[in-house]
This record gives sequence, structure tokens and C-alpha cells, in this order.
Amino acid sequence: MGANIAVYPGSFDPATNGHLDIIRRGAVTFDRLVVAVGRNSGKNPLFTATERVAMLQQCCLAWPNVTVVAFDGMLVNFAREQGARVLIKGLRAVSDFEYEFQMALANRQLAPDIETLFMMTSAEHLYLSSSIVKEIARLGGDVSALVPSLVEKQLKEKLIPQ
Amino acid sequence: MGANIAVYPGSFDPATNGHLDIIRRGAVTFDRLVVAVGRNSGKNPLFTATERVAMLQQCCLAWPNVTVVAFDGMLVNFAREQGARVLIKGLRAVSDFEYEFQMALANRQLAPDIETLFMMTSAEHLYLSSSIVKEIARLGGDVSALVPSLVEKQLKEKLIPQ
Amino acid sequence: MGANIAVYPGSFDPATNGHLDIIRRGAVTFDRLVVAVGRNSGKNPLFTATERVAMLQQCCLAWPNVTVVAFDGMLVNFAREQGARVLIKGLRAVSDFEYEFQMALANRQLAPDIETLFMMTSAEHLYLSSSIVKEIARLGGDVSALVPSLVEKQLKEKLIPQ
Amino acid sequence: MGANIAVYPGSFDPATNGHLDIIRRGAVTFDRLVVAVGRNSGKNPLFTATERVAMLQQCCLAWPNVTVVAFDGMLVNFAREQGARVLIKGLRAVSDFEYEFQMALANRQLAPDIETLFMMTSAEHLYLSSSIVKEIARLGGDVSALVPSLVEKQLKEKLIPQ
Amino acid sequence: MGANIAVYPGSFDPATNGHLDIIRRGAVTFDRLVVAVGRNSGKNPLFTATERVAMLQQCCLAWPNVTVVAFDGMLVNFAREQGARVLIKGLRAVSDFEYEFQMALANRQLAPDIETLFMMTSAEHLYLSSSIVKEIARLGGDVSALVPSLVEKQLKEKLIPQ
Amino acid sequence: MGANIAVYPGSFDPATNGHLDIIRRGAVTFDRLVVAVGRNSGKNPLFTATERVAMLQQCCLAWPNVTVVAFDGMLVNFAREQGARVLIKGLRAVSDFEYEFQMALANRQLAPDIETLFMMTSAEHLYLSSSIVKEIARLGGDVSALVPSLVEKQLKEKLIPQ
Repeated sequence: MGANIAVYPGSFDPATNGHLDIIRRGAVTFDRLVVAVGRNSGKNPLFTATERVAMLQQCCLAWPNVTVVAFDGMLVNFAREQGARVLIKGLRAVSDFEYEFQMALANRQLAPDIETLFMMTSAEHLYLSSSIVKEIARLGGDVSALVPSLVEKQLKEKLIPQ
Repeated sequence: MGANIAVYPGSFDPATNGHLDIIRRGAVTFDRLVVAVGRNSGKNPLFTATERVAMLQQCCLAWPNVTVVAFDGMLVNFAREQGARVLIKGLRAVSDFEYEFQMALANRQLAPDIETLFMMTSAEHLYLSSSIVKEIARLGGDVSALVPSLVEKQLKEKLIPQ
Repeated sequence: MGANIAVYPGSFDPATNGHLDIIRRGAVTFDRLVVAVGRNSGKNPLFTATERVAMLQQCCLAWPNVTVVAFDGMLVNFAREQGARVLIKGLRAVSDFEYEFQMALANRQLAPDIETLFMMTSAEHLYLSSSIVKEIARLGGDVSALVPSLVEKQLKEKLIPQ
Repeated sequence: MGANIAVYPGSFDPATNGHLDIIRRGAVTFDRLVVAVGRNSGKNPLFTATERVAMLQQCCLAWPNVTVVAFDGMLVNFAREQGARVLIKGLRAVSDFEYEFQMALANRQLAPDIETLFMMTSAEHLYLSSSIVKEIARLGGDVSALVPSLVEKQLKEKLIPQ
Repeated sequence: MGANIAVYPGSFDPATNGHLDIIRRGAVTFDRLVVAVGRNSGKNPLFTATERVAMLQQCCLAWPNVTVVAFDGMLVNFAREQGARVLIKGLRAVSDFEYEFQMALANRQLAPDIETLFMMTSAEHLYLSSSIVKEIARLGGDVSALVPSLVEKQLKEKLIPQ
Repeated sequence: MGANIAVYPGSFDPATNGHLDIIRRGAVTFDRLVVAVGRNSGKNPLFTATERVAMLQQCCLAWPNVTVVAFDGMLVNFAREQGARVLIKGLRAVSDFEYEFQMALANRQLAPDIETLFMMTSAEHLYLSSSIVKEIARLGGDVSALVPSLVEKQLKEKLIPQ
């Protein structure tokens, strides 16, 4: 059996400590992990796809088997191009679960050879999301416990006009 | 990195087509899959652990990288003994999700090196469970679409006195 | 098209104002409504099947197109014997929903000709159940707003030794 | 008691195999079924109300007791104009359930004579929605297993510029 | 220990009988209750913050320990300025619960000294929301059982052009 | 307004770090907190009510405004005897939420003057329960991160025969 490659897709606008926790676990569980940054996912992203990829690449330097790539189009096609047969998604709450279930069943219909595996977000990151982080940062709150310091710095630059 | 070994635990009293669907997906996704039949899981099982293991072994003959073993004690210890760093669980509905989350967080606290991955039951097996199968079989209903034919036969022998 | 007959199954141990609300709505919506009291449903019922049927018959006197019958065996077989092609179930909360979904999908597999329709419990009876009623009555609480007066009286006789 | 008429409302942008499964069941369960296409429901529909009605009419030719009509204004008023005392809604997942519950309780307050009945989507259409279908079609994916062939054809014409 | 002051935040666009039920309970439970009207909460509010505050002040005249104030910025900062150590939120359904949990955990991270307490909406107001009220009012439906008469009057003025 | 007294009921078989987190928050939020140990709550408790009260009293020595008392009968009557107008309950997951909602609505019907307030369990104790603790302890696992050290010691004595 060839190398076990997994794709971890998302918009990562921006990456949070919850995302990095999943990446860390994925890097241990699979031979190679491709973090796939959706170029067009979400509406009106705060960061461009290029910025999101660059930030994640910095945050993932510690894991040599992790690569960060932007993608668009069908996720299952992207996974196949990467030689991956596994998608991983982080689960936090029930509302996540239902939406992810719908997406996973749709993806299975489109590509029965690609398996979606769900990982649990660690307890301290449950209920943490990119939207909450942006909302707190916009109001001037402290997000240092919620995102990597690199992301915190870029959030400040983006949100507070010089 | 060594072989990617996963443990799929359950009581399998009896195995349903939903369980076998997860086993089939797991056999493709991992190098080796150990189906772990809980000796004492559940109260008053209909089938003995020996019967449950034997039935599953018959049902899994098509997948050479799947083994079926009975276990008791702590699941994470069993996984370590098997050289596995992954537990897989099937998810069906929201109620599953919450219980499995609780178990997975507890297992993570006990053994941070073991990762729990959730697989989606395929759409036609959502809401199928061993309990429903036994209830239908007890009332004399037809379970041939819900379990392997071997299990159907043994359910009849167990439930209908000669 | 023949008469539109519906079966409303349950253990009714005892019937609550929530059950009677569903019966009232069902009596208006269908030509005939058969309230089906599960002889063996639930463990250790407080009232015998005969008592549960008798109480419900008294409570349903106002609706001439409602009959109350005890049943055992497979619900879908009972429905067919009654000439019904519809089962109705009351929905209250999410936990109801998941269990009822599982039962409805199982029943559909057993009898594709029988349709399960869900009715909403009215707002003031959401979160009301036979178990809660019995627990309150056992502790000496006032259940007059939760069950018909006939049921309240019989609960007292059953629970308070003379 | 007069004919049992039911209204099945939705935006149907576009109709999926899940919608048609509910229509098929409704056509068997009620004397007459009116599929009510919300003229203004949803924001920025892909298909005009006229297109959505025309597609559904084609898809429902097999059921003589089904009519397809556009409507706007209050749904309960439309139901009364049609002589219907029943609304039917399809239920898939927990998130559906809560939203539909809210709408049904609001409708009951506005029109206590109109009853909302919920039908279960069949297992293979759980987690299927018009939004998912449009998202897959936009990305060039195959939706032939998710919608009637007529809808598939019109989706292609709408989404792929000639 | 000083006076027990609680803040009840929301957009109140407009206030419903469900909101007023929570305010009434909060006024009994705490020494002082500050109803905090989010100046910018929600997008495209129907009523201005000034209108929303004025309506609520009229509706709360009966409770001398309730004050109504507009706020913007971080809720936890506002609470501290008011001398409050408690936020109260009304809970209706599961979807509420998950969103409110996320907000409460985020607020706890920002301000560990502020506690969020959840109150249950009374049964007859479950599934009632400002959005539903506005939707019904826009369609010309009767909302007199859902909002105070003052709000009903202002909804008519706002929605029906003279 | 008199002192703000709250009752925190439960079976506490045994108390976990999650329970103590709620007690700590309650001790700060209310003037006096009465921890009410249900004498008969749950079936076949591992610890007697006397043992559960004694353990909790030891664990709560740091909070002078907390008292621990055993109770039986109706919770709302007990609350009134204590001069409390508030019950507090910890919320963890959706399944908790629905059960607690049912109990709170029932208690409100029995005693409209008693208000139930829900507190969020802190993130690291979500999905922690007395049952999980006992299951891990029975299997010989380490529960030192889940319960106070006093409880850990008594669990060992209770479960491991000398």
C-alpha cells in the first residue's frame, strides 16, 4: 500500500489554534498532510488566499510532512490530484456535524474512492471559529490565546488602520 | 513511518450491514484493521463474545487485512498492544455524535497518543442499529436487508425455539 | 380513494394532555384514528394495558371517529389489519426526533406501503412526558395541569396506598 | 368529511430527487396534493418561479392528483384558498427539524385550523438539498443521481454559458 | 457582597413577548437588570437603535429595577462599566444553545470575572423570534399574540406605507 | 431584596472537577449556594448519600458561603425550605440541554416562583460525567485529572477490594 496522504480543506480566514491542533494530529496520523486553502470559500474573506497560505506555511514549519496549497474547483478532484484518498475535517459541535455530514455524503456520491474522516477538536478549542476570532479582534479584544502569534499580528495590521 | 493500523471497537451484537460498511471502508483506508469485539460491552448480549467474533470473522473473509479479536479492559490499552495509533468509530446521528465525543475526549485524556477518527455510515445504513435489528427479528420481521445472511440465520436460530 | 385511517401508537402509561392534543388533531385530520396501546411497550408499566385502554377510551369519548385498542407484535402488521396506511407520531424535542426517525425508517423497510407522519406537540406540552408525570405524582406534586382529571385520579389511587 | 387536500410548500430551486420522493409519498397519502412554489422564497433564486413551476409540472406528470402552483403572501392563506387543511414538510436532519418546528408553531398561531404534518425524506436523500445540488453543478460535478434528468439538463443550460 | 446586577443583551429588532418574559424573570431574580440594545447587532435592522431602546423602555415601565441602554463595542466591557458580573441569555432551542455556548465561552476567555447565565424561555414563547415576527408582519399577518401592543403598532407604521 | 440564595442539585456519585467548577462559579455569583445531594437520585449509586455529602463538604471547604445537604422529595419544595428562589444546573452538551429543559419546564409548572439558571461547564470539563469517571476507574485507568484527589482516593478504596 502506498503512502497514506490526507487533505485537510478549509477557508482558514484566518487559521486558529483549533485548526493547528487538527493539523498537528493529522501530521502524526498520516504519512503526508496537505492543508488545502479554498481560494473562493466563504464570502468576502478578510485575508486573500495568498495571505492565508503564507500564514499557514509559517505556522506549519515544525511539521515537515505538511504542505499548504491553495485550491479551487471540486475538492475531490483536488484530492485525487494530490494522490490522497482521505479528507479530514475537524468536528466541534452538533451544527458542524450536520453540515459536514451533508458535505461528506455529497463528496462520497461524487467520488466513492475518497473517504472523509472526522477528527475531534481538542476540548479547549471547541466552539472556537475564525468568525469569533475576527469579531473579537474587530472590537479590539485580546485574541492571543485563540490564534498563533503570527496570525494575531496580521489581524492587528489588517484591522487597525495606521 | 510504520504500518498504519486501526482498531474498530464495538459490541457487534450482532454485526449489521452498517458495521460491515465501516469495516470495508476501514480496510481500504488503513494498512491493517483490527475489529475489537467488547467481551463485556452492553448488558445481557444476545450472542456470546465467541459467537460474535466467529460471525464477524466469517463476514470479513473477503478482506485479508482485517482481523477480528475479542477484548476486555481499557480500549486504549488494547489498541497499544495491537500497535495501533488510531481508533475508528462510525457516526450515524446526533445522539451518536455526542456520546462518541465524550468517549473520545475521555480516551484522549487517558492516551494522548491514540487518535479517534470518525467515519460516516453510508446513507442507507443511517439509523440502523443492532438493537433495532434484534427488535425486528424478535417480532418475526424480515431483517435480510439489514444484516449479512449468516447473521440473519443465526438470529433465527437464537430467537426461534426449535 | 377509501377512508383515510391513521394509527397513533404509544405506551400511554399514562396518557398526558400532550397525547390528547395529538389525538384531537388527528381526529380532525383523518377520517378515522386508531389509538394503539402497546401491550408490552416500556418496561414495568405503572398501569396494565387494560387500565391504559380504559382510561384513554374515557378521555376520547368526545371524538366519535377515535377508537382505542391494545396491540402487540409488529406495529406495521397491526396497522394493516386496521386498514390504515398512516402512522402518526407526536414530536417534541430533538431526542424524540432521532429515535422516531430510526423507528420510521425501520418501519418503512418492513412495510413500504405504510407512511409515518409526524405532528407537532403544541407548545405548552413540549417537554411533557409520561415519565415526568409519574415522577411528579410519586413525589406528591400536583399534575392537574399535565393530565386529564380522570388520569390524575387514577394516578393518586395507584401511587398512594389507602 | 370532504376530500383530504394537502399543500407541500417550498422554493424548489431546483427540485431534487428528495422533493420528488416526498411528492410521490404525498400523492399516495392524500386525495389531492398541491405543490406550492414560493415566488419570493429564498434570495436570488437560480431559476425564476415560472421555470421552477414548469420543471415540477413536467416531473409530476405521473401523478394525476398532484398540481403545481406558484404562490406568494401568507402560506396559510394560500392553503385555505386551496381548500387544504394540511401542510406537509419533509424532514431530513436536526437543523431542519428546529427551523420547521418554529415555522409550524408560527403557522399554527396564525391558522389553528391548518395542521402541519412532517414526512421523512427517504434514507438515500437525507442531507440532499437544492443548495448542495447547485454548488456541485457550478463546479462541474455530476448531479445525475441527485435530480431528475430534466432538472439536470436545465441546470447545465443555466450554469454553463454557451 | 454588593448589589447583584445583570445585563441582558440582544438586538431586540423588535422586542417580542419572549424577550419580555425573560426581562420579567430577570427583574425578579436580580437586584438590577440592564437591558443592553446592541447598536450594530444584526444587519439591516428594521428599527434604529434609538427606536428599539424607546420601545423597550415603554414596555419595561412596570419594573423599576430594569433600565434599557444602547451599547456598542465589546459586551463584556459594557457589563463591567455597568458594575455587572452576570450576563443573562434566553435559551429556546438546540440551535440557540450551540451559538450561545460559543459566545459564552469566548466571553469567558475575554473576561473570566463575568458569568453567563441562561434562562429558559417559557413554553409558549419557544420558537418565537424577532425574524418570525417581522416575516409575519410583512405578509400582513396578525402578530398581536407575539409582541406587546406598542410594538405591534410600530411594526404596522414601519411596514405599511401610508 | 434579601440574600440571593441558589440551590445546585445533583446526584454527585461522585463529584467531578466539572461539578466543582460549577460550585466555584456559583459561590462567586450568589450570596449563598446550597449543594443539594439527591438521596435517591440515580439507580444503584456507588457511594451512599452520606459518603457523597461528606466528600463534597471536604471539597467545598474553601468556599465559606457553600453548604452541602442531602435531600429527597420534590426539589422545588427543598429550594423553598432553603429560602432559595434559584436553581442552578450545569450544561455540557445538547443531550443535557434537552433533559434539563424538560425538568426546568416541569419545575416551573410546579413552582413558578423558582427560577432555573443554567451555567456553562468550562471547556475542559465538557463531556465529563460521573459515569465516565466510574467506568475509567473500574477499568483501572487514571482519573486524577478528572476528580479531586479526595474523590480519586475513595474511588480506589470502593472499587479495588483489599
